[in-house]
Amino acid sequence: MHQNYSSKLLEEAVEEFASLPGIGRKTALRLVLFLLKQDNMIVERFGNTIMKMKKEIMHCRICHNISDTEICNICGDNYRDHELVCVVENIRDVMSIENTQQYSGIYHVLGGIISPIDGIGPADLSIDSLVEKAEKNNIREVILALSTTMEGDTTNFYIYKKLKNTRVIVSTLARGVSIGDDLEYADEVTLGRSILNRTKFEDSFR
Amino acid sequence: MHQNYSSKLLEEAVEEFASLPGIGRKTALRLVLFLLKQDNMIVERFGNTIMKMKKEIMHCRICHNISDTEICNICGDNYRDHELVCVVENIRDVMSIENTQQYSGIYHVLGGIISPIDGIGPADLSIDSLVEKAEKNNIREVILALSTTMEGDTTNFYIYKKLKNTRVIVSTLARGVSIGDDLEYADEVTLGRSILNRTKFEDSFR
Repeated sequence: MHQNYSSKLLEEAVEEFASLPGIGRKTALRLVLFLLKQDNMIVERFGNTIMKMKKEIMHCRICHNISDTEICNICGDNYRDHELVCVVENIRDVMSIENTQQYSGIYHVLGGIISPIDGIGPADLSIDSLVEKAEKNNIREVILALSTTMEGDTTNFYIYKKLKNTRVIVSTLARGVSIGDDLEYADEVTLGRSILNRTKFEDSFR
Repeated sequence: MHQNYSSKLLEEAVEEFASLPGIGRKTALRLVLFLLKQDNMIVERFGNTIMKMKKEIMHCRICHNISDTEICNICGDNYRDHELVCVVENIRDVMSIENTQQYSGIYHVLGGIISPIDGIGPADLSIDSLVEKAEKNNIREVILALSTTMEGDTTNFYIYKKLKNTRVIVSTLARGVSIGDDLEYADEVTLGRSILNRTKFEDSFR
């Protein structure tokens, strides 16, 4: 539906917000009208913060995570286990794993997963630099922590093949029934896998 | 939950988006990561468009609608009926009514409705300028098109009292069952009103 904006300036601002994913015209208009009600200073800060972020942000030279410095906090942290590398799809996955507070190794951000439909092949991802790192540096174990989708499994397998002739141990996240889930709602594949890969009762308390 | 952002720049940009209404941290992060993937030029345009809008936008001197010029398109349009004024709460309501393509008069944007809970009294709204306009200009009819809430009704009544001693006709939007609605889902007040204010069958086709 064509909207009658009484102002070109307003319309352009709405178009900008509506170009963001998951934001429709109605929401965009609501956001723009909200900003219009704020002080000039607040809107200036909004615009400048986003432009500054885009201009100055870097990718860590080692793990490709987003960083304000050439080497990110995690790779620069000497208390972490630099022989343990967790391979993830994107920086959001780094945040998710960091939030568990259960991991003390470093990361390797692929920047995507192999997906022929989207035209993403192994060459588009930072897989070569992972293999190179695994061969040169003193890496003990690589944990593959990609999505449990077909694309994730494909990528896992591709990386596994690349690494299986090195002395690096390749592991993957445990698959099983979610904690807090009712058994009857678990899907069959997950439930079947959780029986095959059952853990010792004592270990389930760790 | 505390998020471990690996970048202060990223965190600040997420905070800016999360300060908008209806946008949580997760959505904000998604939007920021989307912008991060775009070209520098696109992000610059995003920021600059919003700051420009805030800096340059004006309110029409006559109807208080948002405008790029001192007098908005609608008030400046000589083909419209300038003796018919529709009173609305905000500029979004102007757009909604314009979209119906059923109205050819001009508008008066109050900038809110009387709401003691939110500390908004008649003095905070452009009611005085409406009354002044109704008295001085050649206005025939004022249509009150505010929300059908208690606050809307209060404001309607306040304006009605202010105008009842002028020669201006004060009218209000028809209340009734929505077109396309099943009768059983209409609320009792609306349904009751639609019986009392029934229209001639011939008129329902207009």
